[in-house]
Amino acid sequence: MTPAPDAHAPATTATPGGGGVRVEDLLARRTGWDRSDAVSRILAAATAPGVLSMAGGIPAPDSFPVARLAEATGRLFAGSAVSALQYAPTPGTAAMREVVAARATETGAPASPGRVMVTAGSQQGLDLVARTLIDEGDEVALDDPSYLGAVQVFRRAGARLLPVPGDRDGMRTDVLEQRLAAGARPKLVYVVPHFHNPTAAVLPVERRRHLAALAERYGFLVVEDDPYGDLAFEGGRLPSTDVHSGRVVRLMSLSKTVCPGLRVAGLVAPAALIGELVAAKQCADLQTNTFGQYLLADLLGDPEFLPAHLAGLRALYGERARSMEALLRERLPWLDFERPRGGLFFWCRLTDPRVGSDALYAHALAEGVAIVPGTPFCIEEDGSRVLRLSFASLDEEQRREGVARLATAWEKALTDGP
Amino acid sequence: MTPAPDAHAPATTATPGGGGVRVEDLLARRTGWDRSDAVSRILAAATAPGVLSMAGGIPAPDSFPVARLAEATGRLFAGSAVSALQYAPTPGTAAMREVVAARATETGAPASPGRVMVTAGSQQGLDLVARTLIDEGDEVALDDPSYLGAVQVFRRAGARLLPVPGDRDGMRTDVLEQRLAAGARPKLVYVVPHFHNPTAAVLPVERRRHLAALAERYGFLVVEDDPYGDLAFEGGRLPSTDVHSGRVVRLMSLSKTVCPGLRVAGLVAPAALIGELVAAKQCADLQTNTFGQYLLADLLGDPEFLPAHLAGLRALYGERARSMEALLRERLPWLDFERPRGGLFFWCRLTDPRVGSDALYAHALAEGVAIVPGTPFCIEEDGSRVLRLSFASLDEEQRREGVARLATAWEKALTDGP
Repeated sequence: MTPAPDAHAPATTATPGGGGVRVEDLLARRTGWDRSDAVSRILAAATAPGVLSMAGGIPAPDSFPVARLAEATGRLFAGSAVSALQYAPTPGTAAMREVVAARATETGAPASPGRVMVTAGSQQGLDLVARTLIDEGDEVALDDPSYLGAVQVFRRAGARLLPVPGDRDGMRTDVLEQRLAAGARPKLVYVVPHFHNPTAAVLPVERRRHLAALAERYGFLVVEDDPYGDLAFEGGRLPSTDVHSGRVVRLMSLSKTVCPGLRVAGLVAPAALIGELVAAKQCADLQTNTFGQYLLADLLGDPEFLPAHLAGLRALYGERARSMEALLRERLPWLDFERPRGGLFFWCRLTDPRVGSDALYAHALAEGVAIVPGTPFCIEEDGSRVLRLSFASLDEEQRREGVARLATAWEKALTDGP
Repeated sequence: MTPAPDAHAPATTATPGGGGVRVEDLLARRTGWDRSDAVSRILAAATAPGVLSMAGGIPAPDSFPVARLAEATGRLFAGSAVSALQYAPTPGTAAMREVVAARATETGAPASPGRVMVTAGSQQGLDLVARTLIDEGDEVALDDPSYLGAVQVFRRAGARLLPVPGDRDGMRTDVLEQRLAAGARPKLVYVVPHFHNPTAAVLPVERRRHLAALAERYGFLVVEDDPYGDLAFEGGRLPSTDVHSGRVVRLMSLSKTVCPGLRVAGLVAPAALIGELVAAKQCADLQTNTFGQYLLADLLGDPEFLPAHLAGLRALYGERARSMEALLRERLPWLDFERPRGGLFFWCRLTDPRVGSDALYAHALAEGVAIVPGTPFCIEEDGSRVLRLSFASLDEEQRREGVARLATAWEKALTDGP
């Protein structure tokens, strides 16, 4: 994603001037703290021509409520669109804060609009929480493996990462407790409670309760990032950890449940923190785009919309997951995985020692299918034999073709040797 | 703008728990580096019921190209709106980067799309530049007085501010040169080249050239924040400083020339920095909202749109400025000011020693008109006798009423004594 240098631009790099100071010599130290470009690569692969992407957490384009959004937009322009195009308060529009608070209340402990801030996606929520809490050297505990974008945010904030191993039920809170008892003092613990990225694990109620109790005992903040909670194929969602503790910041993405392109998400924080988060947001971008807030407040404020839309999403993704599972079991017997109960991902282990996930990734790209090898997700764990496959954005034919290309990639990787 | 505490939230502040660690004890040090809430107050006053706002840099709502945006939106939904609702690359959509590059080229030195990043308003551009360059203790030079949002960003980034005094032609680059000769080593110099906020000054070509020469000699980066350049009432705009140096980052807001509510702006950086800025943006929010980028690329890519729209804006604001000037000279003879040649603001001095601008501000608010006293803009300069008045968002009748309220506020402040 590094853009091509500009032939017309003055060649500052070639001819330093500036007393020998090149512009790149001006960089802050933190720019060296995280050199991963994995997220960029994933976003780029998702749009590369000819490549079938099983890589990104890209929602199905046919899941977007286009007609409903067109209706909301039409209503906006039929009335006075002016306020939707004007500046709005930093914490968000009143209507958007209300619908976020209502949704937070439905899925966890009661939250008033005063504890809500609207952000440019949950990525911004994460970044603002890190900027508000983390000084260089502060500890942050998180799953290992973990969401790449979170790892990047915490590294850039100067945090020391405290990776906590997981199992099929997500973070081993018993291991976290051991680390705390041994003296670890994270300022925050980051979790993805439903259909974890990348492992697809769901944190059970007992572990949520345990995590909340640890937060109360050791004084850390739980950051609960929950983009996939509404995408359960069977059963419902579990209540947010904030049912059990007042030390929880909830990041409520709408990217997977409505669409990502409006970049509007909700954040719910303890009353004692929300003012500081708003101050950080004011510095960061003044406010989230007003237009998107108006559209989403229209959709989410409509009692008819969300239940039906979510039911449709669950059916769509459930069907795709079942079809993907059947294809993987039939065509790629060298992959081992648990059937995900929701979300967008299969987290797979390579059972044949002759091929690692990095080699498979390279061969897959050459065959025109993008996957994500385990390494970038892993902090201390070994990621060389795991990989993540998204089943979300491909239709039946593309999925079949993508799996066929993976089968070919595997054969070629085998020929190459380990 | 501090939200009301939530009656339902667990009372973490009242009953600490957490081994005595309250959530607010977890704050990073930088949250204490800037305690100004002036920007919040301005944004809040702009929407308070019954208050006529001469406070914020809020563009005239009747200047928004609503019909043209409705047309672009209609076109989007008539075709495939799906890609406008999906994730997009971190540096921006190809179409948006192209129109920004074209506009940058028209108003300065040639810029290719590879040097463009799309941001959530110029505020985000400023914040990302600061995060990418500033380590705690680094120097940043800027006008005194200066744009509040910039002061806040640099303070939070840990910069030591190096305020440079100005005159009617903006930053005294000769004073900057003396400071540099005396050993000051700013990493960046921040300027608002046209119709400065708050002083309305325009930096002449000779000073731009001088600033560029200093950048080349001392190796600093010039950050040129230009939201008002298209709003000249008479004459045109001057070429960007990047004509004279390759060490310039241009922040190209569209908030005052199209509308602020889409939160889409352009940034143009030297080729050697753009990759790092994109990496910072990826952490901050992954990307700017796709939908707004599609709409603005439609408008700005239309050769018919911008020239006619800008001509309309200049006529509208020119007329308002002339009307404001006449009212101020007639009704508020205790104000001294230069007629602005563009932009949104009058920067006024109080000529009567009996009333200061903070007292006038308080009385004005009580009378139902919001202004901004000089103090929050000033770093080392004395702001107690200056104030900023925006003439942008009030219509004729509101303007007349606002000035009448200011006259009343003045009388009451006089009665109160100094």
